[in-house]
Amino acid sequence: MASLVTGNPRPVRLADIAKAAGVSHGTASNVFSRPEIVREEVRERVKAMAEAMGYAGPDPKGRLLRAGKVNAIGVATTEPLSYFFDDPFARVMMAGISEACDATGAGIALVSAGNDEKLAWNIQSALVDGFILFCIEGGPRLVELTRERKLPFVALELGVEDDTISTIRIDNAAGARMAARHLAELGHRRYAVLTLPFVDDSSGLVSPDRFGTAIYTATRNRLAGYFDELSRFGVDTAKVPVYETGNDAATTRAGLETIFAMGEPPTAILAMSDRMAMVAIEWLTERGMKVPGDVSIVGFDGVPDGALCDPPLTTVAQPIIEIGRRAARMILDFDGAVRRETLDVELIVRASSGPPPAGS
Amino acid sequence: MASLVTGNPRPVRLADIAKAAGVSHGTASNVFSRPEIVREEVRERVKAMAEAMGYAGPDPKGRLLRAGKVNAIGVATTEPLSYFFDDPFARVMMAGISEACDATGAGIALVSAGNDEKLAWNIQSALVDGFILFCIEGGPRLVELTRERKLPFVALELGVEDDTISTIRIDNAAGARMAARHLAELGHRRYAVLTLPFVDDSSGLVSPDRFGTAIYTATRNRLAGYFDELSRFGVDTAKVPVYETGNDAATTRAGLETIFAMGEPPTAILAMSDRMAMVAIEWLTERGMKVPGDVSIVGFDGVPDGALCDPPLTTVAQPIIEIGRRAARMILDFDGAVRRETLDVELIVRASSGPPPAGS
Repeated sequence: MASLVTGNPRPVRLADIAKAAGVSHGTASNVFSRPEIVREEVRERVKAMAEAMGYAGPDPKGRLLRAGKVNAIGVATTEPLSYFFDDPFARVMMAGISEACDATGAGIALVSAGNDEKLAWNIQSALVDGFILFCIEGGPRLVELTRERKLPFVALELGVEDDTISTIRIDNAAGARMAARHLAELGHRRYAVLTLPFVDDSSGLVSPDRFGTAIYTATRNRLAGYFDELSRFGVDTAKVPVYETGNDAATTRAGLETIFAMGEPPTAILAMSDRMAMVAIEWLTERGMKVPGDVSIVGFDGVPDGALCDPPLTTVAQPIIEIGRRAARMILDFDGAVRRETLDVELIVRASSGPPPAGS
Repeated sequence: MASLVTGNPRPVRLADIAKAAGVSHGTASNVFSRPEIVREEVRERVKAMAEAMGYAGPDPKGRLLRAGKVNAIGVATTEPLSYFFDDPFARVMMAGISEACDATGAGIALVSAGNDEKLAWNIQSALVDGFILFCIEGGPRLVELTRERKLPFVALELGVEDDTISTIRIDNAAGARMAARHLAELGHRRYAVLTLPFVDDSSGLVSPDRFGTAIYTATRNRLAGYFDELSRFGVDTAKVPVYETGNDAATTRAGLETIFAMGEPPTAILAMSDRMAMVAIEWLTERGMKVPGDVSIVGFDGVPDGALCDPPLTTVAQPIIEIGRRAARMILDFDGAVRRETLDVELIVRASSGPPPAGS
């Protein structure tokens, strides 16, 4: 380490220690990297010599170059880094990733950027054994940059189908069908849908001819699941307002303004995220509408906040923490294979959904 | 990069590209690291040659060795990594650190370990430009390990005074005095104190002769602040039960059991963390005691959850997010100086504190 930190032009090297202690370079190396496989007597001799000669132990940068392993997982997003600590979905996912890393003592490198140039640099320079990609928007670009590193990676919430990429995902269509069935069985006939993005940076009312065109699979499959199930209950889905949001408060509120200005208002809202569902509860409450007395709402994700909001949110829960754990283990136990896992979701019925108002 | 990933014994190197393109090694290097300073014509020529020769760009590990900079901050704790995503105080601090990193495009490496051996390895191998140390327990060991890296570091919540270490801290005694004054002015005469750890891995009732002996300065200074102020109001502090906790639910509950089994129960609890204060609210409520009707509680920290619990928590709020921002900037803008900053705290009065019950 001394050479790199202090700029000393001729530091004591491991080879010097090995020679002085009369052991092979490999044995001297093992004393520092895998001491448990070196006999105690030899270990003590090498360590004493290292101390006498002022050798500070192997440099982590040097070790990196030799071993090719840094004992860390990179978690990358096109969102700012604060997303990992602010967003409830990201936080639970990170708790799962952390658990798996804690079990083996691995570290986590969080990688992000506000713009493409920084993202590229940060992906290129992150010193990790593999990446977990954590994104909906910007996913394809993130994959492209990560591929260039030639390290294992797992894409979560990537949104785009690609059989060559390892992923852990949920059955989006099945989850959406559960949400729609729940509302249909309660007797609702008039629906509105708040969707995740169809493509990057767009939002607004979606015309029926665009329903199947979302490039993000989560959006496309959830919408298909909602509509499959509503059709089974005789709902004319071509008349259901579908509003594309950016999964944030501003576009969700704009969507609600639009939907409730459109003649007969819905008695049930299918929201593709808990975040949107909670914004909808807030928006309706502010306007004196009761949830679920006037409007029922079903979210998607199962973030912890959904249980605490007022009323508590009915939602399609993903096994978020388990997705995180499995993603981390895919990198930690990487064996060269592409792995694609699909996990089950479940409907959690809380107080934000009920029968439609009488006479609706 | 190719050499390290594929094991190719003779990869195309930057020097080869430079030679083939007829430019200096420095110019070729700039094409990849600082393209904006290279004339477009030259840039295009070098890039075309690199592509033709199958050169994949500079290896991040090589760049690291040359530049000595990895564009990342290490955040280290002796807690498991999940602490960064589960603990409300840690989460807000990390949001502040993230903000400062996002502003300059830096990454974050989270470093942790469940045991000393792994901690040592993780600190030694983390590839970062400096560390933020984030801990109360295990602080001294963490500092010792970090010093060996000879990189800049800032200690937060370290708990131990050391003028040679950069830190951002709060005025613990002033904050504690605010909390005690608030309760004394409401008319309380009977107090109990739930403290942070005095030393690692200990808990239990603290005898008055040990009050000044906590090795962690936050514990020592908060206790001194509470007692200074209570004395000013004529309270005999030698009779105030002081229970040392591990700042977790189990030891806090044990402390409450002990305190409320001790004859005349307190009408006011001074808790050195919001975490303990919220456990206390829960514990008292479970036993049918009203907060603040029977017992008032004042916490310390100002975590967001405190505003949402029932009743909302009166607390001494630290500028947590600002501490995080400043800590990150100390590493990002490191100039070799030891910096020690002390930030102000404020009392936030919510509903968990009120006058003592009549006749108490």
